[in-house]
Amino acid sequence: MQNGYNAVTDGIVRLLKDIVGERDVIFGDDELIMPYSHDETHGAEYARYPEVVVRAGSAAEIGAIMKLANKEMIPVTPRGAGSGLSGGAVPVYGGILLSLERMNRILEIDRENLVAVVEPGVITNDLNNRVQQDGLFFAGYPMSLETCFVGGNVAENAGGGRAVKYGVTGRYVLGLEVVLPTGDTAVFGGKRVKDVTGYNMVQLMVGSEGTLGIFTKIILKLLPLPKAKIDMLVLFPDVSSALKVVPLIMTELRIIPSGVEFMDSLSLKIACDYLGEKKGYSGAGAILLVEMDGNDREQVLEECLQIGELCAERGGALDSFVAEGPAEQDKIWRVRKCAGEAYTALGTILSAEDLVVPPNRIVDMIPAVEALSQKYGVLMPSFGHVGDGNLHVTIIKDPNTQSERGKEQLPALLTELYLLTRELGGTISGEHGIGHKRKQYMPLLLGETELAAMRQIKAALDPKNILNPGKIF
Amino acid sequence: MQNGYNAVTDGIVRLLKDIVGERDVIFGDDELIMPYSHDETHGAEYARYPEVVVRAGSAAEIGAIMKLANKEMIPVTPRGAGSGLSGGAVPVYGGILLSLERMNRILEIDRENLVAVVEPGVITNDLNNRVQQDGLFFAGYPMSLETCFVGGNVAENAGGGRAVKYGVTGRYVLGLEVVLPTGDTAVFGGKRVKDVTGYNMVQLMVGSEGTLGIFTKIILKLLPLPKAKIDMLVLFPDVSSALKVVPLIMTELRIIPSGVEFMDSLSLKIACDYLGEKKGYSGAGAILLVEMDGNDREQVLEECLQIGELCAERGGALDSFVAEGPAEQDKIWRVRKCAGEAYTALGTILSAEDLVVPPNRIVDMIPAVEALSQKYGVLMPSFGHVGDGNLHVTIIKDPNTQSERGKEQLPALLTELYLLTRELGGTISGEHGIGHKRKQYMPLLLGETELAAMRQIKAALDPKNILNPGKIF
Repeated sequence: MQNGYNAVTDGIVRLLKDIVGERDVIFGDDELIMPYSHDETHGAEYARYPEVVVRAGSAAEIGAIMKLANKEMIPVTPRGAGSGLSGGAVPVYGGILLSLERMNRILEIDRENLVAVVEPGVITNDLNNRVQQDGLFFAGYPMSLETCFVGGNVAENAGGGRAVKYGVTGRYVLGLEVVLPTGDTAVFGGKRVKDVTGYNMVQLMVGSEGTLGIFTKIILKLLPLPKAKIDMLVLFPDVSSALKVVPLIMTELRIIPSGVEFMDSLSLKIACDYLGEKKGYSGAGAILLVEMDGNDREQVLEECLQIGELCAERGGALDSFVAEGPAEQDKIWRVRKCAGEAYTALGTILSAEDLVVPPNRIVDMIPAVEALSQKYGVLMPSFGHVGDGNLHVTIIKDPNTQSERGKEQLPALLTELYLLTRELGGTISGEHGIGHKRKQYMPLLLGETELAAMRQIKAALDPKNILNPGKIF
Repeated sequence: MQNGYNAVTDGIVRLLKDIVGERDVIFGDDELIMPYSHDETHGAEYARYPEVVVRAGSAAEIGAIMKLANKEMIPVTPRGAGSGLSGGAVPVYGGILLSLERMNRILEIDRENLVAVVEPGVITNDLNNRVQQDGLFFAGYPMSLETCFVGGNVAENAGGGRAVKYGVTGRYVLGLEVVLPTGDTAVFGGKRVKDVTGYNMVQLMVGSEGTLGIFTKIILKLLPLPKAKIDMLVLFPDVSSALKVVPLIMTELRIIPSGVEFMDSLSLKIACDYLGEKKGYSGAGAILLVEMDGNDREQVLEECLQIGELCAERGGALDSFVAEGPAEQDKIWRVRKCAGEAYTALGTILSAEDLVVPPNRIVDMIPAVEALSQKYGVLMPSFGHVGDGNLHVTIIKDPNTQSERGKEQLPALLTELYLLTRELGGTISGEHGIGHKRKQYMPLLLGETELAAMRQIKAALDPKNILNPGKIF
C-alpha cells in the first residue's frame, strides 16, 4: 500500500478475470508485464511495473474495472501504444495497467459528413491509409504516426509537424465516448462541427493525459485530401537567417505552409555524420523543410517558388530543393527523419524536450540553449516545428567525456531551460505532455491559482484519485 | 432573498462604488438599469432586472467584486454587448450585473506571431477593421459582428457562417486572463499554437457562458487575409436539390468553401416579399450562398465554376451568380441578410432556434420542420449555415390567425423539435448557447452522467454558485 492505495490481491485478479476474461489479465509474470512498465521517455527512472495488466475490450468492461478500482482503492493507468514521451502511460503507483490495445476497430467512415468513428487503439497511420481510399485525410497526427494510437494522440493532444496549417489533434475531435473515473460512461459531442450544449467536455478531455477519463469511442473530423503536396528543403548559412524568414512566409507572402521544420547546425551535423552524408549539406548552418499542399499543383508550385525567393533574398539561403512525390520527398526528409536515431547512436540521451515559444522567439532561444549546453557540458542539438514555435531540444551526454555531471545536474539544467522558455513567453510542453516526467517543474510555469483550478477539476471528476494518479500536478 | 442569495443593500452598493468608482455603479434607477435586463432573446419572459449594474474597468476590480459577492452571497452576471440569443447575460436571480463595456481596448497586434491581445469589450468588427490594415483577419466571428463583443463570442463559442472552413471562435482563442468565480485571477495558455501544460482550461472556459470565469484579456490567433474572395448565389428548384449538393462540394470536388448558407422556400418568400423583390428569385424553392476565398483569384474563380457546374448537374440548379467585390456581394446577400428583419415585420417571433445536425441530415430536417409547423399552426422558415449543419429555424406566430395556440404550445413544439434533432444525431445549440432559454430542455439531449460531470466542474470552481447562476443546467 502506497499513497493510500491498496495492493492488487488474488481476489481482485479473479474479479478482473471475470470482467475481461482469463486471457486478457496478466498477473505474476514479470516478463510479460515488463513491456507495460514504460513508454518512450528516456531514463529508466521513469519506468514502473504495474501489479496487473488488463486488456479491456469494451466501455462496459472498462466501466466495471473502474467501479471495482474505486471500491478497492486501486489506481488504474490507461495505456495506448506506449509511444508517449512524458510517462503518461506509466503506472506510477502500480495497481492496474489498463491497455486499450484490443479496442482497435475503425467503426465508421462517414464520407458525406467527413467523419471517422474509431476505437482508441487504432494506429494513426492505419486510419490515414483507410481514409485516403476515399480521398480524405485525418490532419491531426504526430511524427510517431506509424506506431501511436489515436487514443493516445487525443489523451496527449498530440501535435506534430503540420500544426501550422492544420492545428493539433484536438481540433479534429468532435466527440468522445468516455468512461469517467468513477466508472460511468458519458458521451460528449458528436458528428457536429458546432456544439455548445453545455461545457466543452470534449476539449477538456483532450490532452488530459488519461487522468479525467478513458476514451472508448472517438469521433474525428476528416478533411478532403489535398490534390497536390510539394516539399522544399532550404539551406541557410546560420540559424538566425533561417528563423527570421519563417514569420515572413505568413505575414509578407500570406502563405500558410502545412509545416515548417527546422534543424540547427549541431543536429544537422549529427544527422549528416550518422548517414555519412558529406556533400549535400556542406556549409549549411541550419535548414528549413517547408511542406506545402493545396488543390492546384501549379499554384502550390508557384507558392514554393515565392518562398524560395524570400529565403534567398531575406535569409541569404544557400540553396533550395523542391520535392514532389514520395521518392523525392523521402530524400529531402532523410536527414531530419534520422535525427532521433543519430542522437541515440551518438551518446546517452538524458532528456528529449518539447519547448514551445511564440514563433518569433525561437531565434532568441537557440543561442541561449547553446550557452546552457556549454555551461553544463552536454550536447543540446535542436530541431522542431518552428512554424508553430515548437522546438525539440535534446540533451545528450557528451561522448567525449566520462563525467556524469550532465546527468547529475539535469534538474538544474532543466530548471534554467524552463525559466528561459517562460521568459520568452513559452511553456515546457507543446505536444508531449507533462506526465510524471515534467510534473515537478509545473510550478515554474503555472501559479498556484492555475494549478488549484486544475486540481479542483480532477478532484471533482475523480474524488478518490483512482485514474492515472501521480501525473501532471 | 431567493435561492439562498442575499439582496444588494445600500452598504454593498457603497462597497461596489469603492471598487469601481461612483460613476460606474448604477443603482435605484430602473430606466438606466433597463438596458441591462435583457439580451436579444425573443420573449419578455426571459428578461430580468439586476439589482445593481457595475461597469468594471480591470481584472483587479472584477476580482474584488467577486470576492465581495462570495462573501455576501450575491449572484454576479457578466455581460458583454447583450447581443446573445439564449439569455446568457440576463441576471436570473437579480444581484450584480457586471458589464464589461469599459474594457474595450485592443492591447496588442503582434504581426510576427499572428496574434491579437484584446479586452473582452472590443467589438468584433473593430478588431477585424484594425487587423486588416496589417493584411490579417480574425476568422472566428458570428453574424452579429457589427455589435457583439469578442468576450461574448468567446463565452458563447460563437460560430457564424464561415465555420465550414475556419471553425468556431474557440479555435482562435490561444490564451485567457480570467477572473475565476472565487475572485482569483488566472492566466491560461498564451501566444502559443501548441500548449499541453496541464488541462485545457482555455477551451473549458470557451463556451462556458460566463459561468466559470470572467475574461479580462483574450489572446487570439489571427490568419493572413486571403487575397481573393468570391461569393456565389445559386438558385435551386427545391430544398432537397440544394442540400444534396452541399456534401458533394467537399467530397467530390474536394473544395472547402469558407461558408455555405442556405434559405428554404418559406424564408426566401418572406424575405423577397419584404424587399419587394419580384423577379430575381422567381421559381426558386431554395438558395445556397457559397463563400470562397484563397490567395489566387483565378483558382478561386475556377473553383466557383466547378461548384456552379456541380450545382447544375447534380442539383438541377436554375441559375447561379458569381459576385466579386463588396457592391456585387452585398447584392446577392441582400435577401439572406434581411431575413431576420423580414420575420419581425411579418409577425411575432416566438423563438429563434439554433439546431445543429450532421450536415447530411439537414435534408431530413426540413420536411419534419414543415410537418411540425402545420401541426402547431405556426410559420417555421429556415435558413442557416448548412455547410456545418447549423440550421436556424424561426418559429413565428401565423399572422393570419388570432389564435395564441402557437405560443401556448411552444414548449410542446420545442420538445418535439429537439427530440427530432437528437434522433438525427444533432443537438439544440450550435452557436447561440443554452443560457436560461434552453436550460429546461437539456435533459432531452444529455444524460444524467453528462450533466452531473458538468455540474461537478461548476461546483468545483464556483462552490457557492455565485457566477451567473441559473444557466445551462
